[in-house]
Formats: sequence, C-alpha cells, structure tokens
Amino acid sequence: MAKELTTRAQDYSQWYNDLVIKGSLADYSAVRGCMVIKPYGFALWENMRDQLDRMFKETGHQNAYFPLFVPKSLFEAEEKNAEGFAKECAIVTHYRLKSDPDKKGKLMVDPDAKLEEELVVRPTSEAIIWNTYKDWIQSYRDLPILINQWANVVRWEMRTRLFLRTAEFLWQEGHTAHATKEEAVDETVKMLNVYADFVETYMAVPVIKGVKTTNERFAGAEDTYCIEALMQDGKALQAGTSHFLGQNFAKAFNVQFSNKENKLEYVWATSWGVSTRLIGALIMAHSDDNGLVMPPKIAPLQAVIVPVYKGEESKAVIDARAAVMMADLKAKGISVKYDDSDNRPGWKFAEYELKGVPVRIALGLRDIENNVVEMARRDTKEKQTVSMDGIADTVLNMLDAIQQNMFNKALAFRNEHITNANTWDEFVKLLDEKTGFIAAHWDGSGETEEKIKELTKATIRCIPLDNKQEAGKCILTGQPSTQRVLFARAY
Amino acid sequence: MAKELTTRAQDYSQWYNDLVIKGSLADYSAVRGCMVIKPYGFALWENMRDQLDRMFKETGHQNAYFPLFVPKSLFEAEEKNAEGFAKECAIVTHYRLKSDPDKKGKLMVDPDAKLEEELVVRPTSEAIIWNTYKDWIQSYRDLPILINQWANVVRWEMRTRLFLRTAEFLWQEGHTAHATKEEAVDETVKMLNVYADFVETYMAVPVIKGVKTTNERFAGAEDTYCIEALMQDGKALQAGTSHFLGQNFAKAFNVQFSNKENKLEYVWATSWGVSTRLIGALIMAHSDDNGLVMPPKIAPLQAVIVPVYKGEESKAVIDARAAVMMADLKAKGISVKYDDSDNRPGWKFAEYELKGVPVRIALGLRDIENNVVEMARRDTKEKQTVSMDGIADTVLNMLDAIQQNMFNKALAFRNEHITNANTWDEFVKLLDEKTGFIAAHWDGSGETEEKIKELTKATIRCIPLDNKQEAGKCILTGQPSTQRVLFARAY
Repeated sequence: MAKELTTRAQDYSQWYNDLVIKGSLADYSAVRGCMVIKPYGFALWENMRDQLDRMFKETGHQNAYFPLFVPKSLFEAEEKNAEGFAKECAIVTHYRLKSDPDKKGKLMVDPDAKLEEELVVRPTSEAIIWNTYKDWIQSYRDLPILINQWANVVRWEMRTRLFLRTAEFLWQEGHTAHATKEEAVDETVKMLNVYADFVETYMAVPVIKGVKTTNERFAGAEDTYCIEALMQDGKALQAGTSHFLGQNFAKAFNVQFSNKENKLEYVWATSWGVSTRLIGALIMAHSDDNGLVMPPKIAPLQAVIVPVYKGEESKAVIDARAAVMMADLKAKGISVKYDDSDNRPGWKFAEYELKGVPVRIALGLRDIENNVVEMARRDTKEKQTVSMDGIADTVLNMLDAIQQNMFNKALAFRNEHITNANTWDEFVKLLDEKTGFIAAHWDGSGETEEKIKELTKATIRCIPLDNKQEAGKCILTGQPSTQRVLFARAY
Repeated sequence: MAKELTTRAQDYSQWYNDLVIKGSLADYSAVRGCMVIKPYGFALWENMRDQLDRMFKETGHQNAYFPLFVPKSLFEAEEKNAEGFAKECAIVTHYRLKSDPDKKGKLMVDPDAKLEEELVVRPTSEAIIWNTYKDWIQSYRDLPILINQWANVVRWEMRTRLFLRTAEFLWQEGHTAHATKEEAVDETVKMLNVYADFVETYMAVPVIKGVKTTNERFAGAEDTYCIEALMQDGKALQAGTSHFLGQNFAKAFNVQFSNKENKLEYVWATSWGVSTRLIGALIMAHSDDNGLVMPPKIAPLQAVIVPVYKGEESKAVIDARAAVMMADLKAKGISVKYDDSDNRPGWKFAEYELKGVPVRIALGLRDIENNVVEMARRDTKEKQTVSMDGIADTVLNMLDAIQQNMFNKALAFRNEHITNANTWDEFVKLLDEKTGFIAAHWDGSGETEEKIKELTKATIRCIPLDNKQEAGKCILTGQPSTQRVLFARAY
C-alpha cells in the first residue's frame, strides 16, 4: 500500500506537507508551532550540519555554547534588535510548579516562584553573546573572536509550516568580533560565500548572492547579505543571511578594546545563520510528485538494495550476494541499506522513491546468474542494467551524476525564472503568470518598496552583488533608478 | 604571567572553579545558574558527544529532535515524574513583549499575550516523547523504537556549580519503546554498559555499575541503573543513568500496541542520559595543582609544539622543521597545534599545562642539529629527549601510555577508597577521615537510608550489579541485611 501523495498541480502546499510527513522527515507536535524532527529528517540535518561545521572550522571558527535565556534587561539593550524580536518571544516568568489545591493530581504555576526579571527564550543570541564578549575583550590582542553556536531558538510565529517557519527551530549562529570595519565586512562576505558554496555544492540548490534593502535588514544590522533560492512554484526562499552589525552591539553592551595605539575603540561585529529551514528549501527545489529527491552528497541514505525473489531458497542466494555488494559499497564510503523486510518489492520501490533515496538497486536470481543488477536513479527515474563488476564505482559515478544533474536542473529552472519587467503591468503579470524573480527598477525608497509589497505581496529579495548599473525608471513611481533589483513573492 | 591556581589542599572547591574558568572551559553568565561553555570546553564536549554518538549508532539507535516545550497538561500526565521535576521548572507563560509605556526604550511582558496553557521548558523529555510515540506505535511491527536526542534541558537548581549542576545543561537522552519487559530491561542494561565503556575507555575514569535504591530512583522509573565514579576528594559522582520505566509512561499517555496475537498491550520503556556534568567528573578525577589533565582520546588538543629560540633567523629554521613535524603528526590523526605566538616559552608551557594538553614538544635550534626534540607528558610531567625520526609514532605511543596511566591511577585511587564498615562508628569515621565509597550493610528500608543521609550527608550510591550476597546487620539499625551497599558523600 503505497502512500497517497497530493501532486504539485493539485495543491502545492499540501504536496509539500505530504512529503514532509509521509516522507518521515518531521511531524507536528503537541506544542503549538513546534515540530518533531523524525530520525530520517534528523539524519538529513546531521549531514547538513556536519558539512557546514567542517566549513566553519576550515575558515577558522570554533564552536561554543551560550545560555538559552536572555534576561529582559539585556534583551532590550540593542533597541532595534529588541524591537524586531519583541513581538514573537517566549517569556519565562516563573521557576516552579506546585500542586493545584483545586484539582487533584494537577499542577499550577507557583505564584511565589515569580522571577524578579523575566527571561526571554533566545530568538537569536546577539544580546547574550555581546554581553559575554564584554568580559573577553580588552585589547586588540583578544581579536578577532570567531565563534559559532549550534542551538535551538524560539520565535513565536503565528502562522507556522513544518521546517519553513516553526516556533522552535534548530540553527547555527556565528558571532564574530573584529578590530576594524573592513575585517568585519570581509568576514560577513566570507560567510555568505561559505553558505552559497554549501547550498549549491551539497544541496544542489543554486542561489543568488545579494544585499537586503534597509526594510528587509536584520534588526540591529548595518547590512544584511543573503542568499536567495527559487522554489518550483516560483516563490523565492531566503536560504541564509550574513549580517554586518557595525558597532551597534558593541555600543549597546559597551564592548571596547584598546588598539595598538592604546586608544579605546568599539568592536566591530558580524553574525550569520542558517537553519532547519534549509530542509524546506531542499524539498521544494528538487522533489516531484512521487516524493522527495535527495541530493546524494547529503542524503541520509545514498543507495538501497532490494531483493526480488520467490521462496526462501532464492532469498538465501540473494542475501549472500547482497552482503558482498554491501561490503563493496560501504568500503567506498557509500551509505547503503539492504532491505530484506517482509514487504513486497513494489511497496519498497515506492517507499524509497517517496524518501528520495538517490540510487535503488534491485537484485534477483536471474541478475545474479547474469552477473548484473538493475539500477534505478531517483532524479530521472531511469533504470539500467549494469554489471556487478565494479558496482561500487558504478554507484559512485551515478551519485555524482545525480548530484550534478539535480543542480543543473534547478539552475536551468532558476535562470528561466529571472525576468526583466519594465512597466508596472508587466511586473504584475509576470508575478502572477510566470512567477520567479522579476528584475525591475526601483527608486530606492522604503515607502515604494512597502507599497509594492502591499499591492502585490512581492518583496525585494536582494540587490545582487556586482549588480549591473543601468539607468532606468522605478516600475511603481517612475522615479529615476540606477539598477534593477530582484523582486519575488517569497516564503 | 602564569595564572595563579588554588591548590587542592588549600580549597578543593575553589581549585575546581579555577580550573574550569582559568583553563578556559566555561564561565558564569548573566543568567542565574547558566554557564557559557567556551571554545576549549566545547571542543572537549564535541569529542565526548561524537564518540558517544558513534556508540549509540553502533547499538542501533537513531537521533531525532523533540520540542523544547512541554505543555503543562502533558507534563503532569505521569504523576511521579511530574512531582519529581515540578519544583525546578522554568515556565513560559507569555509569548510577546511590548514597549513599556512608563519607561522609554524598555520592554515589558505584554499581558494580552498570556498563553492559554503554560509551557514547561523540558527538564527531561519523557512526557513530550511518549505523547508523540502514541502516534507512532500501533502494532508490534512498529517496535522497538530506539531514539536518542541531543538537547539542552533546564532544571532550576538553587545552588549551581559550573558543569556539575547548572540550570541549563546539554545532554543526550535516549528514549526507547519495546514490546516486552525483558527487551526493555536488556536495553536498559545495554546502555548502562555503553556508558561505562565510554567513561572508562575514553574519559579514563573507572566506574562502578549498580542499581539505585527506591529513594534515589528517577521519578517515574521502575529501576534506575547508574555508573558511579570517585573524585579525588573522595566524593562520588553519578556519571550516567539508565532507567527501566516499565509501562508507566505508556499508561500515562495510553500507548498500546497490538501484539502478534492481535491483543492490545502497553508498551515498555527505557530512558538513559549523560550530560555536560561528565566534564566535571573528568576534571575532578584527573587534574592536579598545575591544572587540567586531559585524557588523550578526547583531548581537544593532543599535542602542542612550542618553538624555543632567540632571534627571527633561528625561528625561521624552527618554523620549517615544525611544519614537517606537524604534517607527520596530522597524517597519523593527532590533533596538534604549533604555537609560535609572541609569548615566552615558559608562559606557553604553563598555559598548556593548565589546559591539560597531553603531550608538549619543545623544539630549539640545538634539538634540530641533534635530530631530537624534548617531549613532556602532562600526566606525570616527565620529560625526555626523543629522536625526530618516527616522531609521530613516538607521540602516538605516548598518547596511549598516558591514557592507560591515567585510567590506572584513577582505578588504584578508587580501589583504595572502597572500604568495608561494620559498625556505625567505623562508618562515620571512614566517611570523615578516609572518604570514598563505604561498603556497609543496610536493612533495605527507605527510612533508614534517609536517616543515614540526615546524620552523615552520605547517600547510597548504588547496589553494585552482581553484588556479593552475605548476611550481616544494618550499620544503623542492626536489622538483618543480605548484602553490603555502597555509601558515599556525593556531588
């Protein structure tokens, strides 16, 4: 009994939910807006996390851990940051429960255990971290500080969607401190490039690197750099951000250092993060009506071997051959499973298709006689009969080919969906009918941006780095503009 | 300027704090009872976590992630568990801050954003997980479920100590579901053995495996298995626990499965966890008055090379030789750092001694001429001059020798500190003067246990597995007893 999936054409949003839930990635929980990440989804996150972690360490960063709670007085110290997150914070006000005298066996919040100062469950950690850095930084010799944290954060979103927007999510947040503005800006851009490299190389999702407009900046940042990806429904998704924070947090927490001339200066800061939201991007960039399609480089399972047999005797022969093949594949570093469970082969084929396992190998008695296997690739669903000789290398090559093909396909789709609009009508029509990124002139004002958002739900996703400068007129106001920016409806 | 350390003889407790803070493992934070784990301390935790994670996966477990918050109604469902943790819970009651009309630039909890149902920040996750397992388990085919979670948890402790007892801490919690009692008990014992293996083999800390008394059981468990370690001040430390939960949580959350005969049964459960507390055990088991002593198998840094030179010219020669040596060591998988910073060699020696780096190599011009290096081991502080030929193997062998020696030393100390007491006077005298574990007869009653605790602050650490049965009389009451149990004062 294969699981019924909604198709993209029927209901894109339901299709997405079906893949997440029926594909065993995650599920809703008893806590409003919080999800349970199931083992298959968590294995995917582990692969993503481990690769990112390697890339952070290769670029000189170390991991550390800071408290989950931010005292309200610290939270409000950087006013813009506080204002940006105040409306969606979980607040701890008490530290004890007691027996409810009116309801036997039930508990109630103990009013005597009210905290003197409320604690905010971190929506992001700049405040608690910069309050700590104050103690760590005295001289230029203490700089730079290059720290990353893997953590859970909470933002009390009203409308939640699995992976894309949940009240609690997992992420990493880098927080660096520098002696000069230039060094901090360089770090901001360096980490943007690490993110772009990761998302393109490992997730096979092409991204556009750019800078956010003032309206779309992180609360408390001087500049927010971002990578923007395109989903199959033509909506954009912000896949990662890297913020140049200037001296805002240093000033809010009074973090100064004595420079080489022994003069006090405020420290320069960056922060950067990606989250479990990336899993949402992965799903929507690659999957199809049959289920998930996992990029081989981060797939929880890269290959599966399914025995096809009648009777226990032939199973024993297949088991033996499969064991040899498993050893071969594992020796080459391929993560592979032999599924000899009781279910029918057809059921298994559908199940691994749904889960997006890149390579499926079917192995029957006749295959063994002929020294071949049937190999199916998930991305194109092509099947081919290949020799058992050198099967591990064949699978390795196939995994590479799939990874490359997935990226190329997503890139072609993305490139086909960047369209110039020169008039308002064109802009609106493109947004509704073609979707994707619309490159259009904008007069640079926050008001215009806001107005366009109100009228169309499209936002400026970014001003691409190294954007071509060209004279033009704002599509809404007709005011002069010096460059096109990328609009889209977005997740 | 070497950092001044308190000695163990001067003030054991201050010595511990000095090592944690001056050794750059962790620091206090602005949040009551919460610590900041600094990069060096976090690198240690990563090594411990990664090794444990491998051992969990090798024994068939998968990681997943469950919500940080537990709705109060779920939290109170298993009454004993709820009662056990109710007094030390952080409670989220609101989901928004707003501008404080009376204080410009300040925020206040928005009274309009009160949650209908309060959320408990997880002190442990049985409740939220078993509420989820209810949806995952229908038939015996869905069992066993073997899941582990790496997470932060919060227990509002009144008296906190870095690593040993903090309001927030990092841990892993395994939560498994089984069709039979026997299978669940086997799992409980299996994971206890994994913990013992990890702590002894990787942390070089010998442990005693045992079962807790009823009084000391995890709230909601039928049986709590534990590993107990001994610190240098003669106090015991519970290093890990594995709980057989019976059907308590299955009944509280109504989790039933249809067995092979198609009859409904309640599911059997286990849970097991170790935390960043283990770092406290590591420090107190091995360190000395000069600082930390890291077991090579989990040391954040296994070796350091310190150049000893006068003038830039000789430094260039040493740099070149060190680069070759670094490459050799890294090729053998040794984590090594070349410290050519501006500080004096003597300062560096003291610093790496404080941080407990197992092997220190000093490299000067004359050493290079003689094709030797000076190698110092942290555990015994012995120095020796060794040939540069095959230096990587020499270091590897030294790391093994240090690991073994640290375990042997801790084991000898522990074994010398298990003493039989046959009378109350002997018991009290041993506790005060010799310290360590006291093996004594106990009448098996919770009241007696409580009374002994009141009188001496000693608790029953465990009833060792495979304990020798022998007739005797309770040291307090004189009532008959069938075996000795291990008492100690404990962290």
